[in-house]
Amino acid sequence: MAENDHPRVDFRTDPSRYRHWKVAIDGRVATVAMDVSEDGGLRPGYELKLNSYDLGVDIELYDVVQRLRFEHPEVAAVILRSAKDRVFCAGANIRMLSQSGHPWKVNFCKFTNETRNAIEEATAESRQPWLTAINGPCAGGGYELALATEHIVMADDGNTSVALPEVPLLAVLPGTGGLTRLVDKRHVRRDRADFFCTLEEGVKGKRAVDWGLVDEVVPRSTLDETVTRRAEALAAGSDRPAAARGIALTPLERTIDGDRLVYRHVTCALDRARGVAEITVAAPDAPPADDLASIHGLGCAFWPLAVARELDDLILHLRTNEPEIGLWLFRTTGRADVVEAYDRLLADHQADWLVREIRLYLKRTLKRLDVSSRSIFALIEPGSSFAGTLLELALAADRSYMLDGRRQGDDRSAPGVRLTAMNFGAYPMANGLSRLAGRFLADPGRVDDLKGRLGQDLDATAAEEAGLVTFTPDDIDWDDEVRMAIEERAAFSPDALTGMEASLRFAGPETMETKIFARLSAWQNWVFQRPNAVGPKGALRVYGTGERSEYDRRRV
Amino acid sequence: MAENDHPRVDFRTDPSRYRHWKVAIDGRVATVAMDVSEDGGLRPGYELKLNSYDLGVDIELYDVVQRLRFEHPEVAAVILRSAKDRVFCAGANIRMLSQSGHPWKVNFCKFTNETRNAIEEATAESRQPWLTAINGPCAGGGYELALATEHIVMADDGNTSVALPEVPLLAVLPGTGGLTRLVDKRHVRRDRADFFCTLEEGVKGKRAVDWGLVDEVVPRSTLDETVTRRAEALAAGSDRPAAARGIALTPLERTIDGDRLVYRHVTCALDRARGVAEITVAAPDAPPADDLASIHGLGCAFWPLAVARELDDLILHLRTNEPEIGLWLFRTTGRADVVEAYDRLLADHQADWLVREIRLYLKRTLKRLDVSSRSIFALIEPGSSFAGTLLELALAADRSYMLDGRRQGDDRSAPGVRLTAMNFGAYPMANGLSRLAGRFLADPGRVDDLKGRLGQDLDATAAEEAGLVTFTPDDIDWDDEVRMAIEERAAFSPDALTGMEASLRFAGPETMETKIFARLSAWQNWVFQRPNAVGPKGALRVYGTGERSEYDRRRV
Repeated sequence: MAENDHPRVDFRTDPSRYRHWKVAIDGRVATVAMDVSEDGGLRPGYELKLNSYDLGVDIELYDVVQRLRFEHPEVAAVILRSAKDRVFCAGANIRMLSQSGHPWKVNFCKFTNETRNAIEEATAESRQPWLTAINGPCAGGGYELALATEHIVMADDGNTSVALPEVPLLAVLPGTGGLTRLVDKRHVRRDRADFFCTLEEGVKGKRAVDWGLVDEVVPRSTLDETVTRRAEALAAGSDRPAAARGIALTPLERTIDGDRLVYRHVTCALDRARGVAEITVAAPDAPPADDLASIHGLGCAFWPLAVARELDDLILHLRTNEPEIGLWLFRTTGRADVVEAYDRLLADHQADWLVREIRLYLKRTLKRLDVSSRSIFALIEPGSSFAGTLLELALAADRSYMLDGRRQGDDRSAPGVRLTAMNFGAYPMANGLSRLAGRFLADPGRVDDLKGRLGQDLDATAAEEAGLVTFTPDDIDWDDEVRMAIEERAAFSPDALTGMEASLRFAGPETMETKIFARLSAWQNWVFQRPNAVGPKGALRVYGTGERSEYDRRRV
Repeated sequence: MAENDHPRVDFRTDPSRYRHWKVAIDGRVATVAMDVSEDGGLRPGYELKLNSYDLGVDIELYDVVQRLRFEHPEVAAVILRSAKDRVFCAGANIRMLSQSGHPWKVNFCKFTNETRNAIEEATAESRQPWLTAINGPCAGGGYELALATEHIVMADDGNTSVALPEVPLLAVLPGTGGLTRLVDKRHVRRDRADFFCTLEEGVKGKRAVDWGLVDEVVPRSTLDETVTRRAEALAAGSDRPAAARGIALTPLERTIDGDRLVYRHVTCALDRARGVAEITVAAPDAPPADDLASIHGLGCAFWPLAVARELDDLILHLRTNEPEIGLWLFRTTGRADVVEAYDRLLADHQADWLVREIRLYLKRTLKRLDVSSRSIFALIEPGSSFAGTLLELALAADRSYMLDGRRQGDDRSAPGVRLTAMNFGAYPMANGLSRLAGRFLADPGRVDDLKGRLGQDLDATAAEEAGLVTFTPDDIDWDDEVRMAIEERAAFSPDALTGMEASLRFAGPETMETKIFARLSAWQNWVFQRPNAVGPKGALRVYGTGERSEYDRRRV
């Protein structure tokens, strides 16, 4: 199937529409059971046998993770298992992969990686640890899903094993962090990992524990009991409030009218000729009531949470449905003092479970920007509100342009940018650094100096001196300079830009997450193009046809 | 030109054969001048104009770096410059790149990367700091070469600039660490780096200093004087001995007889049918004289240095000339106590400049193994000498097989492995960890425990318990198990193995070097396959033809 033949993918869903997952909550422990519907594929042409998955299955899983966090403050541990009797999960559906073009495969892996990371973040930061009970063969993406959880218990029943058979079977890599998590999270010895990753049939029983592939093996008859006990123990250590009431993630309103997408606070206008998405994020008109109860009362109408949801959906929509839109231009509107007032709420009440979730959601959404294979520019103009949380959009951008002074014929004042406490660590990137810290690696002391300018409106001169913006053309130069930058960007090779941006965005330390997005994904992207995988005789292409793959034996 | 049409590349050279470089030594300071001969390309079909380079030019540069370290202990700073009047270096030759197939390009970049790393290591560890005087346009690989040096002085003459024009001009990435060194070594702010990397014409003058692209700009008339002053200052801080005598790196003897390569201590037999190189490293018959003078007296006949040179040459030879040999099998022969005695010399005299160089050379050679896109197995059999430095070969391997007990009909005793002090930090990998530390990330205390077993012969049971070997079949199982592992490896996709090995070999911390080899190289390899770069209308393909490149606009 050609790349753009697929119907638009919608990332919005809710439990009433789930086809592949069952969620049950018993006190402090939720159980998420994978029960993939064979005929429930997102696109035609493949059957989701053996709990194999496609993007649609993962969209639902992502929704599950989100709702457990926001709608269920009482849930303090999550058990992942299969609802099928004889299989845990066979991984990403191979026929789906073999039918998909390169961009689809890469984007699919990116989203599934982000969801695995969200599971780890829920475990570590939302204090909602995930555990896995492996009841049946658990291969490829199935095992990678288990690897994203905190504790893995496996049945010792002769039928159950863990495996990463991608290399021997399909000539591709485990695409969802498996290789990295083996050696960097579970610290499986590299020679054992090497052997394990070449073993179609995987590893079962005691060896799986000895090698660190799983945490426990237990008789099938005690699997449920064991994992429930572990979950209860983890739940007992969680600070999630047993008696609190969650907030409902109500359906996200969005209208698409031709090339215009409109949410409540975010709008996006596509300019297909130039390959540009013009995205505007609006601050509310007035500051919030200054109390925690009103945040809970507003629920997902609370502006920071609403913006996170809208941006999240927009990013996923553009990535998946608009591959030819190579440049995302971010603008903001509204008053900086209003954004600052919201940021103050997020800072003052960070100990509250819901505020914590909102901050984490904003963090995850901004991180999606960092790993999006699109160029990102921020335009800071009169009437904008690049303060605090919204300033992060400019700091996440590959470049920012800020108008120096006023615009002729425009009676609005010159634009400013404003730092709030939220710029100093609330939204770390995948490498663990705040965007400010990542920006000033040459002179880390500048980050501390900037704390002295909290809450000040910085005009173009001050913002440039502070190192917060890239270019500050005045009204005479603005139109030409911005237009040329946009046109020029559109003229470059999209692939070279992707590789360049991925390399420049993450200076400084590395983490498991950056390793997964940077080195592992880059290698996988490379392999996903190689004739040995995807050529006419490539393993991914001929899998299941009865034909044998044929390889070019040259090592590269 | 098709991949395997090129004549065999020989990495051995010496100053009498240089065509592209001039080396002059004045007291403590050496000047290395790039003076590429236009008609001196390694392969036909391109002219090396404007000091552009190909693999042949870089082979000479590598030789320069090596000889300055070993033959010139008195040299305590090295100035890199161009011998051409109007250009510094135009980077890798584009026509050469556009004519080369994917494996050649990737291997070329790997070798040039290793040489840039060797320049940085000479600066930091051999105390022979490199500086650059940029006299004329310095673009792409030319600027990447400068980035590998400690200090960059640029002429301010209207003609001289630094640039990384690969993305706008060729739709590929700067392939030799440029993107990483910009933001991770020089800490250029990411938005400025973004702009700089899209600028064909580059940056000159004050902005280059303000942005951190170079360290100084000076009038052309004072360039030489300035850089010499800086070099002398750096030399004054070096511990390299002004009065010592270097050792001559005499021609490396090697015979190639059909599929058999023979050096003095290393032999390699190619089995083309199985795609295997059987490599044997021999320990000397007797322990060395226990004094420093004899090491200096032996020069490059001193066994550890001889082995480093031979292995280095063999690795480069196999990588470049034997792409279809996908598995390297390492064996050793000789007595462990002899290897241990050599290791003791290397440990006891590490303060000596020559011993330091030998240790660093062994380190670099072992690091080449780590980044080689070949599977590596070690076979530990009766008569082997996997001790200390040679044990590193087994620790660098993807797997090791050690015979448990004796072999029937073989009166040699069962094999052992032996740790020496050299296994505990003398040969760090690119990530800064010793191979032992990288092996035991799950339980770092084991590394300390193993210090209690220094010098002991560990049999298969003990070696397995200690975690030093992967599998320990006995005589009954050995042949089948090893044969099947080799056959199986040969049946997998070479590309999937490359991606898998690159992911599993570097658990733990990341460094600039691992970033360059892992993330940057992986992205470059990906880009090097994309039709936007190398397709019929790709930028690399049409460059210089007058045709315009045409891009698939989809972002991936």
